[in-house]
Amino acid sequence: MRNLKLILSYDGADFAGWQVQPGRSTVQGTLASAIGRLTGENVLPQGSGRTDAGVHALAQVASFATASTIPAENWLRALNDILPASVRVLEATEAAPEFHARKSARGKTYRYRIHRGTICPPFLARYVWHYPYPLEESAMVAAAHVVVGEHDFTSFAAVDPERVERMEAVDNANATSVAPTNVRTIFSSEWIREDEEFVYAVRGTGFLHHMVRNLVGTFLLIGKGTVSTEDFRRILKACDRSAAGPTAPAAGLYLVNVEY
Amino acid sequence: MRNLKLILSYDGADFAGWQVQPGRSTVQGTLASAIGRLTGENVLPQGSGRTDAGVHALAQVASFATASTIPAENWLRALNDILPASVRVLEATEAAPEFHARKSARGKTYRYRIHRGTICPPFLARYVWHYPYPLEESAMVAAAHVVVGEHDFTSFAAVDPERVERMEAVDNANATSVAPTNVRTIFSSEWIREDEEFVYAVRGTGFLHHMVRNLVGTFLLIGKGTVSTEDFRRILKACDRSAAGPTAPAAGLYLVNVEY
Repeated sequence: MRNLKLILSYDGADFAGWQVQPGRSTVQGTLASAIGRLTGENVLPQGSGRTDAGVHALAQVASFATASTIPAENWLRALNDILPASVRVLEATEAAPEFHARKSARGKTYRYRIHRGTICPPFLARYVWHYPYPLEESAMVAAAHVVVGEHDFTSFAAVDPERVERMEAVDNANATSVAPTNVRTIFSSEWIREDEEFVYAVRGTGFLHHMVRNLVGTFLLIGKGTVSTEDFRRILKACDRSAAGPTAPAAGLYLVNVEY
Repeated sequence: MRNLKLILSYDGADFAGWQVQPGRSTVQGTLASAIGRLTGENVLPQGSGRTDAGVHALAQVASFATASTIPAENWLRALNDILPASVRVLEATEAAPEFHARKSARGKTYRYRIHRGTICPPFLARYVWHYPYPLEESAMVAAAHVVVGEHDFTSFAAVDPERVERMEAVDNANATSVAPTNVRTIFSSEWIREDEEFVYAVRGTGFLHHMVRNLVGTFLLIGKGTVSTEDFRRILKACDRSAAGPTAPAAGLYLVNVEY
């Protein structure tokens, strides 16, 4: 058996998220079908983590074992010929036998795009969150660093029955059988103006379910003036989801890359 | 009664074209419903011309008569609140009583985007034609001017029962009851490289149904080396649709603006 690594980009608007679900169109399921058509194998490719319905990927990573003898360099074109245009394979390479897209991940970068113009161009409607209302952007820029470092991000974790299972437990690679934790390390966190867009870029060891969208929703309260940077620190320390702001919509979120 | 003029942008991928059709989602029908919700009136807004299913607009123009007393400056926000995100009103202004979006038009500009990269980003799949195969682009650049001037464009007109009715008969404003003609004047015609895209930009008095897509499909034959610039001139003079190349896909086409 060989171990293959794929780098994928996809338009999340067309899918009910990454993870395979019966009767729904998902990225993992679509990719599994394409691999099946190519090799005749019944393979479930593992992603670096799940993305929710509507969330996009610039460079998601997936890995899977295969008995196929197709050379790695031919996989790219062959899969892209089968996959819908909303999913593209950007790279296909041979990986070491121990490589696992999720367990081997050491870091991830996400971006969240907010469109600040009065009118959002129709061609961006699927790809940004349109928020044309007043925001003190400089306050958000100044507060962005608050999450940098090692913290328990329970305040920003989705409260749902799937939470533990859904956690992108990058840490699991080292901590084999300890209980799942909500502690993550954020390496960088910035709000950046890019023409008509206000963009949040965050890089860390891993992210809990809904974590980036909940951070964005809470930073927005700073922009609205209802929460201060000090309040934000308290929200983080509270380890209580109800202390933080609402979840920002999925459409603005991009998985930018995964580090190994 | 007042006469209102709207400038609209829309993502054609979500619609079965501009023109209202029973049981299908169209831009004209969607706009008519929004106007109806706002004013209670049963109004069919007139566009500068029809766009086909999948064809986009950066600045389509529509006009309609209304008895509503809503000030023109309030229409923009009110309609955008009702319309889906795939259609945006960019401007709403009071027009002279004799203004008619189609009959008053004096010129139009279209762009056609071909994506030349090996892999088309999934976020562009709805917005370009992905054509990664070899093309002698310089030959297409050199041949672009051939259509400039006044010509009978029958070779590039859709052969369909709707053809005459569908013609964007800009000329009709002056020529009240003469038979429809396939003669149009092209002011400029260019192929331009823009990073990974090869773009056709064309401006003229008006365009027949499928005319831009048929021009693009025929220019492509020049890029493939199967047709020369001289052949292209002969195809134009032939006034025979079967002499020209295939119709390029709708997704790459944009109505850029309308001149009055």
